[in-house]
Amino acid sequence: MSEIETQEMGLVARLLETWPHLPASEKLSTFRSLAADDSEDFFLALGPREHAGLYEDFNRAERRLWSRFLAPDDAADLIQELPEELRAEAMSLIDEKVRREIIALLSYREDEAGGLMSPRFVRVRPDMLVAEAIRYVRQQALTVEQIFYVYVLDSNQRLLGVMSLRQLFVSAAEKRISDVMEDKVVTIPDEMDQEQVSRVFQQHRFIAIPVVDKDRRMQGVVTVDDILDVNQEEATEDIQKMGGQEALDAPYPSVTLPEMIKKRGGWLMLLFVGEMFTTTAMHHFEVEIQKAVVLALFIPLIISSGGNAGAQATTLIIRALALRELRLTDWWRVLRREIATGAALGGALALIGFMRIAFWPNRAELFTDHYVLVGICVAVSLIGVVLFGTIVGAMLPFILRRLKLDPASASAPFVATLVDVTGLVIYFSMARFILSGTLL
Amino acid sequence: MSEIETQEMGLVARLLETWPHLPASEKLSTFRSLAADDSEDFFLALGPREHAGLYEDFNRAERRLWSRFLAPDDAADLIQELPEELRAEAMSLIDEKVRREIIALLSYREDEAGGLMSPRFVRVRPDMLVAEAIRYVRQQALTVEQIFYVYVLDSNQRLLGVMSLRQLFVSAAEKRISDVMEDKVVTIPDEMDQEQVSRVFQQHRFIAIPVVDKDRRMQGVVTVDDILDVNQEEATEDIQKMGGQEALDAPYPSVTLPEMIKKRGGWLMLLFVGEMFTTTAMHHFEVEIQKAVVLALFIPLIISSGGNAGAQATTLIIRALALRELRLTDWWRVLRREIATGAALGGALALIGFMRIAFWPNRAELFTDHYVLVGICVAVSLIGVVLFGTIVGAMLPFILRRLKLDPASASAPFVATLVDVTGLVIYFSMARFILSGTLL
Repeated sequence: MSEIETQEMGLVARLLETWPHLPASEKLSTFRSLAADDSEDFFLALGPREHAGLYEDFNRAERRLWSRFLAPDDAADLIQELPEELRAEAMSLIDEKVRREIIALLSYREDEAGGLMSPRFVRVRPDMLVAEAIRYVRQQALTVEQIFYVYVLDSNQRLLGVMSLRQLFVSAAEKRISDVMEDKVVTIPDEMDQEQVSRVFQQHRFIAIPVVDKDRRMQGVVTVDDILDVNQEEATEDIQKMGGQEALDAPYPSVTLPEMIKKRGGWLMLLFVGEMFTTTAMHHFEVEIQKAVVLALFIPLIISSGGNAGAQATTLIIRALALRELRLTDWWRVLRREIATGAALGGALALIGFMRIAFWPNRAELFTDHYVLVGICVAVSLIGVVLFGTIVGAMLPFILRRLKLDPASASAPFVATLVDVTGLVIYFSMARFILSGTLL
Repeated sequence: MSEIETQEMGLVARLLETWPHLPASEKLSTFRSLAADDSEDFFLALGPREHAGLYEDFNRAERRLWSRFLAPDDAADLIQELPEELRAEAMSLIDEKVRREIIALLSYREDEAGGLMSPRFVRVRPDMLVAEAIRYVRQQALTVEQIFYVYVLDSNQRLLGVMSLRQLFVSAAEKRISDVMEDKVVTIPDEMDQEQVSRVFQQHRFIAIPVVDKDRRMQGVVTVDDILDVNQEEATEDIQKMGGQEALDAPYPSVTLPEMIKKRGGWLMLLFVGEMFTTTAMHHFEVEIQKAVVLALFIPLIISSGGNAGAQATTLIIRALALRELRLTDWWRVLRREIATGAALGGALALIGFMRIAFWPNRAELFTDHYVLVGICVAVSLIGVVLFGTIVGAMLPFILRRLKLDPASASAPFVATLVDVTGLVIYFSMARFILSGTLL
């Protein structure tokens, strides 16, 4: 028996894995082919985007059935994902009472606490006895899907205290709720941004946190599983921005080609225009290149090293800022440490670079008779460029945060672009200084 | 009263925010200055690394008090963070019974289900009546911190079913547990990797999932708040790797300088050695550069565009693979789509590049009399380089995954290094073809 169960669970789990990869045309028929039990489990596990996709293909009876099957917060998310013209019909299929809950939820932005919360929770009054409260909770348990905490509200719906279901369970039947409840309640304002909500959960490790309005009236409950989605969304946004583009705001496979080109093209063109300054910089050193073509050989090596060092520093700092491991005021400490790191890394590359030039078999043929000087010039430039790249990469996220911009925009490509022009200037200035009188 | 409470909660929350930034020497005295209640809340909210930091500074009485205060799984995590020489003493301070739980937990790796779980859960027998079970759960509730589900085990500790505390609550007192329990239980094998565990939570949206051994004997419970940490850890690792370095495995401020240099230096030197091929490639085109120095002006612009396009593609694909939006078998669909994207983006840059050359005020002076041909050469190269960069960036994560390596290693710097050599070859081959007879 237990094997059959495992297999049955496996079916839903497996289908969830393959679902995003099914052709849109097969989704409805696959869903309809599920046993009643499985289709319920499966439908609940889908996200709002997939709910909306199925809903559009459903017939009227299915639309009615499944939109009523969802909890009000999930139904609200589904409705927000639907195309404009289907929303009114969707609302009309839902019970009057639930519809009112959904309308209240829709007044919040998707990315604030009110948009994340479920409006259903179990409430008791402070003057109830524990035994009374247990009976009262038992009644409410029939309409509230998940109960982890019981909330104690006054007659104005203001939140006075909280108890876990477990605490209610172990309290003596004749005690008064106000005497056994926890009255130091961690709450979330209904307009708090979801990133901050996630931080509150990370700090307090509660399973659910009540959401209150300005007057401390309880509005709903955010549960930790909603935070899993928030965190994933925020990390995805950061990662995509760190790749030098706009966040897609949708799974890769469901972004249309024109949209994809738009999200990537904007930054790519901006970086391209920025990088054009390298052409201008190079123009100033045309004479040097003409005289000593050997100098051109190392241009990609030198500027890319600066870009790579900068990419490392910027990703570390962006993530450390996002995780609050670093604060704005830490910039000075970070700068000192990155200077040390950059100097050490630049030194290591300089050594490798020098040896590659000074000890290469046909060095004189490749790098002219002054190969030792060329090697010194490349090595010194590498130290300068890597150090500069590291500093720019480490400081740019702080500067963006200070300007109230998203630090994650300090992408590896952005840093590389900033570093390339300076890298060229450093390299050719070194060359003028070290090689003047010999090659130049 | 409610205002005072908010402030009190605020104290713990505020201290949690500033904690990582406090000098190590001030942490113990700050902690000791907290009121008893606050210090308990605060200590519970800290992670294992911070627990270990405080523990080292504690006197013996504090060590005893606080290590006993933690749940066994948190105590096990603390012990793992302690330096070798303190572990035996730490174990000796803990109760015999809890010590045995901790030893069992320590036999699991930190990053598998057994290392994440709490060994404490509430159990009932299948033949109990609901009323009996409620009494039985009430007894256990005194030693188990969090109860969301009640697990039904046979006499061999094998898991038969599950009930939420709410279900137990609303079931008729005279029913038998085996008749009201849910017998389709989602379980996690004790040796499952934490990334997979996280996926199970994402799919099923449970608050807690039981962990079983090979014989389906229940070992413990993983709760969703543990998964928050897992997800954050995994995203941080990916982000750091995507910056072209090893994952730090610790918060930025707590990594020592030599460690930092080691984690970054390895990849940086590897990329540097890879990038040396650009020097070899450039050597083959020295004659062309000698004849037409104007060609050198566009080297940084062209190769960086390929790198940027590749960085975009690789970050999108790495993240989509991590989120299971894409599977290995999707490579062909992705390739086709990225070819279209790369061609469009390359075309856009080509247009801008051509105009920058052909319509610039002093174009003839800057770019020779053959500036139109130079412009065409740059434009065609840009299409080729951006297209190539996009394809490499999109395919490299698939190739790494196929080779059972981490796709996140396909960092922006890695892709740029791969693309740079080819970019140079494309550019100079175009130049030879388009400019032969005029500049070359």
